[in-house]
Amino acid sequence: MQSEKIKLAKVLEKIGDYFSPKVVGEVNDVYVKVAKIKGDELPWHNHKEEDELFLILKGSLFFEIEGEDGFVMEEGELFVIPRGINHRVSSVEECQILLVENKTTAHTGEIVSTITRTIADQLE
Amino acid sequence: MQSEKIKLAKVLEKIGDYFSPKVVGEVNDVYVKVAKIKGDELPWHNHKEEDELFLILKGSLFFEIEGEDGFVMEEGELFVIPRGINHRVSSVEECQILLVENKTTAHTGEIVSTITRTIADQLE
Repeated sequence: MQSEKIKLAKVLEKIGDYFSPKVVGEVNDVYVKVAKIKGDELPWHNHKEEDELFLILKGSLFFEIEGEDGFVMEEGELFVIPRGINHRVSSVEECQILLVENKTTAHTGEIVSTITRTIADQLE
Repeated sequence: MQSEKIKLAKVLEKIGDYFSPKVVGEVNDVYVKVAKIKGDELPWHNHKEEDELFLILKGSLFFEIEGEDGFVMEEGELFVIPRGINHRVSSVEECQILLVENKTTAHTGEIVSTITRTIADQLE
């Protein structure tokens, strides 16, 4: 069990790839992760049984939900995408985010793309 | 199910009492909360079966774990206090934090003090 404090900026600094979350905290059945987003390669996907929380740490994120107008999320804003809802996120400039997800949540749902990361990748 | 983005600063602005968390997101079996901390009234307590995550949004927090030296957490730092471990937090100046806890986690564990809040209080 983790027993040290974690400086999010330090973890983010070390992340080389965009759309590649890293686990920073384990809390019961969830992982808290950070990621850097830049570009629009993330495919549309959903997590059938799992909600997913996004918090913007730095920059801004374009959030799209199938059938709805896209919207911009700014630093200090949070959004929960309910289970089963198709979504994707993108950003022109680098955006840093925090995620709260079940340990079982697959990165890009049932979709597999070149950017898809396994849980093992995210725990490295 | 929540489907609007939440501005954490707006929620924090409305919180009148210190040590009084408010739920800002529901993600599967966990609540994500924000709280303002000032003073040292929070009693020593633990959560028998539940880990609890603290992320500092603003200011600094003094974190104490029974039998260990206290330490300071600064903005952008995160700590998971494992289940069953006695702890308390305090701050001389106002500190704003984000918490990730199981829905079942009691505010001050099995201890009841004048500052103890129910889950209903936190969902108001």
